[in-house]
Amino acid sequence: MALQPQRTVAELKELRALTGNEAGAQRVAWTDTWLEARAWLRTKLDDLPVETHMDAAGNVWSTLEGASERALLIGGHLDSVPNGGWLDGCLNVLAGLEVLRHLCDTYGGRPPVTVRLVDWADEEGARFGRSLLGSSACCGTLNPDDERGRTDKDGVALPDALRRCGVELDRMHEAGTELQNAAAYLELHIEQGPVLLDLDKPLGAVLGTFGVERHAVTFHGQAAHSGSTPMERRKDAFLAAAKMSPESYAIAARRGGVCTIGSCTTKPGIVTSVVEECRITLDQRHLDADALAMMLADAKGASERFAAEGRVTVNWDRLWRIDPILFDGALIDLCDEAIREVCGTSHRLPSGPLHDAAEVARAGVPTVMMFVQSLHGISHNKIEDTQEEHLELAVAALAKLADKVVARLGAQG
Amino acid sequence: MALQPQRTVAELKELRALTGNEAGAQRVAWTDTWLEARAWLRTKLDDLPVETHMDAAGNVWSTLEGASERALLIGGHLDSVPNGGWLDGCLNVLAGLEVLRHLCDTYGGRPPVTVRLVDWADEEGARFGRSLLGSSACCGTLNPDDERGRTDKDGVALPDALRRCGVELDRMHEAGTELQNAAAYLELHIEQGPVLLDLDKPLGAVLGTFGVERHAVTFHGQAAHSGSTPMERRKDAFLAAAKMSPESYAIAARRGGVCTIGSCTTKPGIVTSVVEECRITLDQRHLDADALAMMLADAKGASERFAAEGRVTVNWDRLWRIDPILFDGALIDLCDEAIREVCGTSHRLPSGPLHDAAEVARAGVPTVMMFVQSLHGISHNKIEDTQEEHLELAVAALAKLADKVVARLGAQG
Repeated sequence: MALQPQRTVAELKELRALTGNEAGAQRVAWTDTWLEARAWLRTKLDDLPVETHMDAAGNVWSTLEGASERALLIGGHLDSVPNGGWLDGCLNVLAGLEVLRHLCDTYGGRPPVTVRLVDWADEEGARFGRSLLGSSACCGTLNPDDERGRTDKDGVALPDALRRCGVELDRMHEAGTELQNAAAYLELHIEQGPVLLDLDKPLGAVLGTFGVERHAVTFHGQAAHSGSTPMERRKDAFLAAAKMSPESYAIAARRGGVCTIGSCTTKPGIVTSVVEECRITLDQRHLDADALAMMLADAKGASERFAAEGRVTVNWDRLWRIDPILFDGALIDLCDEAIREVCGTSHRLPSGPLHDAAEVARAGVPTVMMFVQSLHGISHNKIEDTQEEHLELAVAALAKLADKVVARLGAQG
Repeated sequence: MALQPQRTVAELKELRALTGNEAGAQRVAWTDTWLEARAWLRTKLDDLPVETHMDAAGNVWSTLEGASERALLIGGHLDSVPNGGWLDGCLNVLAGLEVLRHLCDTYGGRPPVTVRLVDWADEEGARFGRSLLGSSACCGTLNPDDERGRTDKDGVALPDALRRCGVELDRMHEAGTELQNAAAYLELHIEQGPVLLDLDKPLGAVLGTFGVERHAVTFHGQAAHSGSTPMERRKDAFLAAAKMSPESYAIAARRGGVCTIGSCTTKPGIVTSVVEECRITLDQRHLDADALAMMLADAKGASERFAAEGRVTVNWDRLWRIDPILFDGALIDLCDEAIREVCGTSHRLPSGPLHDAAEVARAGVPTVMMFVQSLHGISHNKIEDTQEEHLELAVAALAKLADKVVARLGAQG
């Protein structure tokens, strides 16, 4: 049975018909539609000589046993956001399924190393607001006490929703045993950005996920009447905050990476008063930890300069941070090679969003991701799309990469 | 009975004790406390040979009949905002009361022209959101149908609150007859800004009230993921809006006048997305109509330039506008002269806030205002304050100005 990339496209459409509606994909984790999607996947897996089970964290593992216990993992997630796209997460799983079929065929059912497909549980965090739930439990970074109090919009508690699907919050960490023999982890994903589209490249090898520094920056000045206060007497919190916007673009240009001011609120926020307090959020991302630290230092310095210029004060509060997570150099090279062999051209790029792959890499498993071009640079929306031709190239390149990794791991014994 | 400016200060304190509390003045129009303040004023007026009545709009007029029917009006308002200051509005009335006593004394009860003190009803609009209610009704610019539907925060309808105080909304315009013989209008007020304080001048002659152009300016870009969208691909509505802030300062510097961005809202307004829509309010003020029009044109031009630079769109919606209202040149000269005679120094300045005087001037009555220095540049707050020495100078200068106007009107027959 030769690799049939067009079968993956057909299966994606089948899944869309089964679990989506006119508003988009509805495979929100821990819902009936998600369970239905998983049952549908199970029927596909049942045609293969694989053992399938759900781990303690709700992740579903399908294992094609090889000559060695050392395992190549291929991952993705069937769960989607509400009204989501037809590719985010499930492309990864269904391409992985096709690669599993291909390896099964290539090696007569027993490859030199074990190959495992994993469908991570609740990558999106759409219902309870906690992304990467299943992969973080498996990779040892989930603290149940941080999640226990979460409820969905209808007031259903997270532990109850999980229990209904056979998962006990306090036992999720037991899924860690699944990584025992993991020797490599591969994940294909749509880019969810415009970089490959702009470069007119179908596929790219991912270097890692950005580190993130996320802060609220609050400027404090003095409310004053808009009519009676001369300009030179004002202590205008909005003026200082506003200067941060072009400055954040200058910092990104100087250091690389990206900076985003996503929110701005003003107090008293009325048309007849100078702004007393202005709060902006600043999200800075870079693949290099030192460069990220410099971006943050640049922004802090600029905020203090703008505050002094306007005789206002400034305070920084950290909302969240995460270090950059770099993928495995050897696997990046293999990924790049596989893409070139299939497409004739490749590109190396960082990932802005986090993915389950970041958890796996943090757990010490050599990891790489492959991105396929997104149209519109849009995801988490029903207009999310990728050319079918590019989807087929992606399946072919993922299979090629798996071949290379199996060969390498096999040679290492 | 010679002019006793210190009596005005004492009466201001008496009124504060009667109608204020630890949070500030509580003389909100159409409330019992306001009626109490008016009854207290009445006891003061009863010692003078004046006729006092309330007009159809709720304004209280006290008339010292003169040899001529031509009338000098001196005005103010006893009503305050909730938790207001001890001077805003009532200084004007009580200084006018002292000037009335002084003129009564000077001319043995019958000055060459009629002199009238008016306590305008509801200058602040604090309860129903409509400023200058009594003066606009008297001056012919109030449309009852625009006000009929107003309610206070407890749901009380404006017409009901007025009726309780003896005022019928639909008959308020009848107060217009009060202006029949008006030949000049004087109003003393605290500056409510820092200009005189910065110049170390106790008093100033007011040139007029600023014209105002008030707009909502909305920039529309494209939401995009903060991690996956390269900087050069963004259509960032906040970036374009933010550039308007330093630009509004540059426009004010170039054209004179003042510009205020008092509010900024962002959509989706989340830390992980480029801003799709950003709405700011822009309030521009100038004493010169042509300069105000140029300020507006400058700002529109800049907004379009910033929108084009960032590949976003921009829309302008007018929230409100009013033309500049210039006071009477001859009265400004007399006011300046009176201030110099009392203080040795004067300053001419525009008024940022509107006042009842603007309504009277718009009705065609020659008008001037006198400002007394404000400490802190703050009003509408219990910390509103003015040095007592300056209050006394203000009463003396207002009396001197009234003397000059009475003499001039008397000479004109």
